[in-house]
Amino acid sequence: MAAAAGLRAFGAKRPGWLGRGPWAPLVAGLCSGGLAGAGRPEPGSRPTSVRQQDGIRKIVLSNPEKRNALSLAMLKSLQSDILHEAESKDLKVIVISAEGPVFSSGHDLKELTDEQGPDYHAEVFRTCSEVMMLIQNHPVPIIAMVNGLATAAGCQLVASCDIAVASNKSFFATPGVNIGLFCSSPGVALGRAVPRKVALKMLFTGEPISAQEALLHGLLSKVVPEEQLEEETMKIAKKIASLSRVVVSLGKANFYKQLPQDLRTAYYLTSQTMVDNIALPDGQEGIKAFIQKRKPVWSH
Amino acid sequence: MAAAAGLRAFGAKRPGWLGRGPWAPLVAGLCSGGLAGAGRPEPGSRPTSVRQQDGIRKIVLSNPEKRNALSLAMLKSLQSDILHEAESKDLKVIVISAEGPVFSSGHDLKELTDEQGPDYHAEVFRTCSEVMMLIQNHPVPIIAMVNGLATAAGCQLVASCDIAVASNKSFFATPGVNIGLFCSSPGVALGRAVPRKVALKMLFTGEPISAQEALLHGLLSKVVPEEQLEEETMKIAKKIASLSRVVVSLGKANFYKQLPQDLRTAYYLTSQTMVDNIALPDGQEGIKAFIQKRKPVWSH
Amino acid sequence: MAAAAGLRAFGAKRPGWLGRGPWAPLVAGLCSGGLAGAGRPEPGSRPTSVRQQDGIRKIVLSNPEKRNALSLAMLKSLQSDILHEAESKDLKVIVISAEGPVFSSGHDLKELTDEQGPDYHAEVFRTCSEVMMLIQNHPVPIIAMVNGLATAAGCQLVASCDIAVASNKSFFATPGVNIGLFCSSPGVALGRAVPRKVALKMLFTGEPISAQEALLHGLLSKVVPEEQLEEETMKIAKKIASLSRVVVSLGKANFYKQLPQDLRTAYYLTSQTMVDNIALPDGQEGIKAFIQKRKPVWSH
Repeated sequence: MAAAAGLRAFGAKRPGWLGRGPWAPLVAGLCSGGLAGAGRPEPGSRPTSVRQQDGIRKIVLSNPEKRNALSLAMLKSLQSDILHEAESKDLKVIVISAEGPVFSSGHDLKELTDEQGPDYHAEVFRTCSEVMMLIQNHPVPIIAMVNGLATAAGCQLVASCDIAVASNKSFFATPGVNIGLFCSSPGVALGRAVPRKVALKMLFTGEPISAQEALLHGLLSKVVPEEQLEEETMKIAKKIASLSRVVVSLGKANFYKQLPQDLRTAYYLTSQTMVDNIALPDGQEGIKAFIQKRKPVWSH
Repeated sequence: MAAAAGLRAFGAKRPGWLGRGPWAPLVAGLCSGGLAGAGRPEPGSRPTSVRQQDGIRKIVLSNPEKRNALSLAMLKSLQSDILHEAESKDLKVIVISAEGPVFSSGHDLKELTDEQGPDYHAEVFRTCSEVMMLIQNHPVPIIAMVNGLATAAGCQLVASCDIAVASNKSFFATPGVNIGLFCSSPGVALGRAVPRKVALKMLFTGEPISAQEALLHGLLSKVVPEEQLEEETMKIAKKIASLSRVVVSLGKANFYKQLPQDLRTAYYLTSQTMVDNIALPDGQEGIKAFIQKRKPVWSH
Repeated sequence: MAAAAGLRAFGAKRPGWLGRGPWAPLVAGLCSGGLAGAGRPEPGSRPTSVRQQDGIRKIVLSNPEKRNALSLAMLKSLQSDILHEAESKDLKVIVISAEGPVFSSGHDLKELTDEQGPDYHAEVFRTCSEVMMLIQNHPVPIIAMVNGLATAAGCQLVASCDIAVASNKSFFATPGVNIGLFCSSPGVALGRAVPRKVALKMLFTGEPISAQEALLHGLLSKVVPEEQLEEETMKIAKKIASLSRVVVSLGKANFYKQLPQDLRTAYYLTSQTMVDNIALPDGQEGIKAFIQKRKPVWSH
């Protein structure tokens, strides 16, 4: 077992696939280790735990006492665990789960008081957005495994993953309106996952939807009984881990790239991708193996 | 009870949040009172009725004899009722419902004959589009409460509301093809609410879908038995009316603004919104009340 | 019966509605007859069959021995059958179905080996994309009637049709990852039909979804028992064939045009379309017939 322990995002090299945008300079600053203390976790007190085996990295939100709130420390720990050796061939898929009955309750409200001030608030939301975009921009599929309540930025985290599996006792809500803080950022991910009428009812009333409703409306990929959650999620993870990493990675990047394009541009992009994919060693190996009726042997 | 009676859109001041676009000058004309008679309702014969109490404005389409057709007079009356004192702190949420077994049958076909001419037709469709966009651009959530049949522009009205609740005996259709007038404008709202395959089957065949199918596909937020329709809709309205108006309003505007953006821009916009939201008195009050385990007292 | 036999796309005149884009010059080349042999079907061995009656063209993928693989020959035959006399008033709707238990298994992998080379691969994917876009750009509605398995580009073909009806024993999958060839092009159509969480689970695992799940998530318009598939699909086709072709055609083109636009532009476009539609002889006839309570007589 290759346990990935003691990770720190602060010194992580920023790969090219993380893209650029209005925040590019800030992001560079964030990852250069130049930021002062507030969000930096104390040694030995990381709010996430991480293990990796057979290509599957399991990241667990491990602060159940605080309902796995996405404090700045939690966000940075999660970011670090996701970013760690992202380009390694040994990593094929990431599963994010949580300890305790609450998957995540969203931001830590103690970090959003007047005393902390707007600069600190901005850092919290910027970091949160970075993590959500990182999931989409990451080279391997990222699966949320949810058993319990996911609210606000916790619900956003589920909506941001590529695949989400939940137990049938899970619930999802964006209840920010109850405390005078509209879930605007969670609405970015929620509004891209479920129909507008569903998203706005959740955002305007703060009331939860069940796992079954979440599946019906597109927030989840699959719902299973609680006792099968681990098994069913790992079945998906193992399947992905058995595939060619380079092919899956190319496909993931391409999917998100073509989705917002007009149809002609999308087909232009993906036809190129298909040709490039075939030219990869694993593309040729897969097709040959299929024709020769044997199992493919991936080089990546 | 603060009944809002005798409203007229014609003299209403146009707030800034109504946006601009290709129609901006026409819109200005529309609202300046400069338009001649055809669509102007006779005094005492308004086709909608309106009441407001405890922050909830109820607008009722009140022309059941004509199946609540969206005649130009009906559209202007509806527009006027929605626009009336839109900026007032006393208004928290709007509920649109209808008298009789038909929520709305869409445009009044007698207004779309050859005799009326293309300029009149253009005014009808422009006004209809204005009303649909007004719903999205309005500072408070607007809920459709549907009990019966909603067709063509009537279906479009449901699809355009932020939230839609319907009784299980309701049906939805875009049957324009039957009379040689494709529901192209209703298709704008329908195509943004339900999957393409569902929208095109409705548009190409004109056949209705049930409330349950409408919920399944995203056209509705909730379906309830007829006898619970009023109660369940009012539960949502009362919940919204109990919240901070300024927070809900900021959230609504931001949701529709970020939705068509690319992910990075969307998160850039909403992170700003979150910081601004916290800085609002109601943002600080809500977070303080939560930490102090008491009920918040909203200033707006 | 007006059987449309012996069609060839190669000499077909390219109508204006096929649009332009990055591929415009290649497309012109493709249709000018200038391409050499590889994909050209032998006379007498067309992999599709086609019949047309009462305005309904039925195109059948007729290579069940090869699981109706979308070989270059199959794609060109399908393209030719769809394009043939597309502007004819006698054509009102197209139904695409398949012989045998597999609707289509996607690309013919023997065409994607190293030996064929990247230029050939590029032609395959370009032609496939052309066919998928042609369906959307075609003046009449195109319905997929699916009874069995539709995978990879076969699933893409279903997702690309305007309407899709399937028997309850049908399954849908994008299993390219299993052979090292990510279903990037199928992901274009799939990602526009179903929620992201569903699309990515299908793309990353290759596992099939049932017809019922496909309906739930927006990939299908309707699911029926196998023994009713033909009847229910033809009911939709006959309904469309009874309508004004010019009105349906205007509506279809407009629907796809407005869908990616911002709301204001979409309403601006469709309001124009509505006015133009009314001015059509069939628009006036339909409205008059409705007011006079008689059946309309379409001129187109």
